[in-house]
Amino acid sequence: MNSQNNTEQQNTSEYNRARVLQYIYHHDVVSRAQVAKALHLTPAALSKISNHLLDSGAITETGSLKGRSKRRSIGLAVNTEQHQVLGVKFARSLIQIGLFDLAGNSKSIWVDQATDYPTPADAVESVRTLIHSILRKFPKIMAIGIAVPGPYLKNIGHTAVVSSMQQWREVNFRNEFEHAFDVPVIIEQDARAGVLAQYLFAHTQDDSLAYYLLGEGIGLGVIDHGNVIDGALGSATEIGHVSIDVNGRPCECGNVGCLERYCSAVAIHDTLNELGSGTGSEAIVPNSADLTHNEACAALFERAEAGDERAKELVERIGTYVGYGCVTICNAFNPSRIVIGDIVAQAGTPLLERVREVVAERVLPEIANSTTIELSGLPTDAAVTGAAAVAIMHILDHPSKFFATAT
Amino acid sequence: MNSQNNTEQQNTSEYNRARVLQYIYHHDVVSRAQVAKALHLTPAALSKISNHLLDSGAITETGSLKGRSKRRSIGLAVNTEQHQVLGVKFARSLIQIGLFDLAGNSKSIWVDQATDYPTPADAVESVRTLIHSILRKFPKIMAIGIAVPGPYLKNIGHTAVVSSMQQWREVNFRNEFEHAFDVPVIIEQDARAGVLAQYLFAHTQDDSLAYYLLGEGIGLGVIDHGNVIDGALGSATEIGHVSIDVNGRPCECGNVGCLERYCSAVAIHDTLNELGSGTGSEAIVPNSADLTHNEACAALFERAEAGDERAKELVERIGTYVGYGCVTICNAFNPSRIVIGDIVAQAGTPLLERVREVVAERVLPEIANSTTIELSGLPTDAAVTGAAAVAIMHILDHPSKFFATAT
Repeated sequence: MNSQNNTEQQNTSEYNRARVLQYIYHHDVVSRAQVAKALHLTPAALSKISNHLLDSGAITETGSLKGRSKRRSIGLAVNTEQHQVLGVKFARSLIQIGLFDLAGNSKSIWVDQATDYPTPADAVESVRTLIHSILRKFPKIMAIGIAVPGPYLKNIGHTAVVSSMQQWREVNFRNEFEHAFDVPVIIEQDARAGVLAQYLFAHTQDDSLAYYLLGEGIGLGVIDHGNVIDGALGSATEIGHVSIDVNGRPCECGNVGCLERYCSAVAIHDTLNELGSGTGSEAIVPNSADLTHNEACAALFERAEAGDERAKELVERIGTYVGYGCVTICNAFNPSRIVIGDIVAQAGTPLLERVREVVAERVLPEIANSTTIELSGLPTDAAVTGAAAVAIMHILDHPSKFFATAT
Repeated sequence: MNSQNNTEQQNTSEYNRARVLQYIYHHDVVSRAQVAKALHLTPAALSKISNHLLDSGAITETGSLKGRSKRRSIGLAVNTEQHQVLGVKFARSLIQIGLFDLAGNSKSIWVDQATDYPTPADAVESVRTLIHSILRKFPKIMAIGIAVPGPYLKNIGHTAVVSSMQQWREVNFRNEFEHAFDVPVIIEQDARAGVLAQYLFAHTQDDSLAYYLLGEGIGLGVIDHGNVIDGALGSATEIGHVSIDVNGRPCECGNVGCLERYCSAVAIHDTLNELGSGTGSEAIVPNSADLTHNEACAALFERAEAGDERAKELVERIGTYVGYGCVTICNAFNPSRIVIGDIVAQAGTPLLERVREVVAERVLPEIANSTTIELSGLPTDAAVTGAAAVAIMHILDHPSKFFATAT
């Protein structure tokens, strides 16, 4: 065999190794026979691959499983506790860094106010320094996932527009982070990171899944039959900039009537400020202008829960717009599950109920009835969990890069 | 080896055989070395698979290719001329049946007016009879692809709503056709069939591609990095029912402001009728109420081309709405190419130019500049070509079902 054939052989091995590792990861504990059957591999081929993964520490054997044939077989599981990743979430005003094991369990979270820095460049520098110190302290970290607001142009490395925070466009995340550390760095749009977290950690068993991120911006990540919808430049599923009214409110992206202009945390905060920024009776949230977007929304939702009629009405109006977005998600992507998360999702059940009403009114019954709409069950810092999921997906896709054997 | 292992082995063979056949199909003529490298197969494994495909008549050897190493190698190509498929296109008022070879070359087209039958059931019966007689005459036909208007619920077998032709909802296409003939029948939403035709036959080399069907309804099919976006029920990418104005025109689907209500052939015909259905000066197209949707649109586009100012204005307005749809396609799916086809696309360059203007105005420059928008280069009966593409994709996915060897 010439060297080209050797390379082909290696590519084939890595390709099948990744498929096996992913399958085991998604099924927690499985027998060799299950894996071979599902992936169309011969028992001999599977045995070779699983031995390699065992030797390198990527997976472990976990006691015995009872099969249908009543023969006991050894279970295989990914060695999630022995390896760690770092998730980094950049939002418009907040930067979060989290340490996770490969199962997505959070170990530590660090938070930084991006708005405390004179420029985004200063915030980036500070984050880089913090990551360096974390890496020194936690040598088990294998990779870093970074989640950034969309539309994120993956091949170029910067966000195309960040409503109300255009300065962030100047930051080229790939240049700033990709070669800054001894471990690989993978950067992804935040809602796409969020759907990966739902897919990897929430055990929904759905492979047609959407994560609808209602944060400072509005984002969406969609997995269709197991494939993340990316688009040519990596800027697909930008629901926040899909127009719900072609004659509506202008948006910084150039479009008119973008969903983001009606129900993002920034839009809600603007509405609260317009209603009255002082302590007068016209204000639903007094002195809202002094609060962060997150605080202003939290205050509104608290008032609504306490029974304030005007706050309840505003939450219902927000739910209506969030619902319009869901109607578009149903018609454009037809996922079996839409998971709603981030700041605005903290409005809880009243919001969810209004969203479901709008979908029931405006989506074809057969499609509406087969779409589950729910609030994210992951912890509130799901976005940083998403960043971790991006790193974990990369590890599962490239086992040989991370798990070496002595041979 | 027990029987279960034999089945696994068979599944593995079929899986790899399909991958090889598809790769050869997409590359017209390739060497064994190219296929092995691209698909991560060892030369020995590839040799076994290609010999099987040669023996069964699925592929042929086509002279010699000059490789980079200056060694000549034998080219492999799919045996497209020796096998045929039937494409059947159901539109609201027109049924077309076409005979194609595996390269998508049209051999014959039969046309039937669905509106000539008292009920859709009668039309279905007539089509079934016609197909039986065609199958008797053309024994090389291996499979039948059927394209139906969306939203089509693939797992159930009927369309969820067909604006202005609700009777078609009663037809369960799977029950009516799936077991009616000796060859397999595969049913798909029309625009998704259209994007498959672009992908298989138009040689765009793009694997992030959208087909924007402007027919009696408005449809969309999207391929994202080689994967057709389907949705959980097969009703994703329903751009015709994505709202462009949440306070706009109500639609039969339950939604409000559906794109389809503004620029489908049906909507355009309605507008022409409203402007004046008689021969008076107020009519752009005289006696438009007596025409089919297709004829009414064709008459409008003819008048516009002849310089009629009011016709030109209306075409521009239609182009604006088609453009709004393109803006949504860019933000929701970010394809590298949007191909516009079917009835309304016959408006030609003036429509295309207006669409491009709207996209330039409303889509982020980096995304707009990297998105090619063009009129379909396939023949006008591209929809029936799409139905053929559905059948051909099925054949490429299941080679052993169609190509048997003596062994």
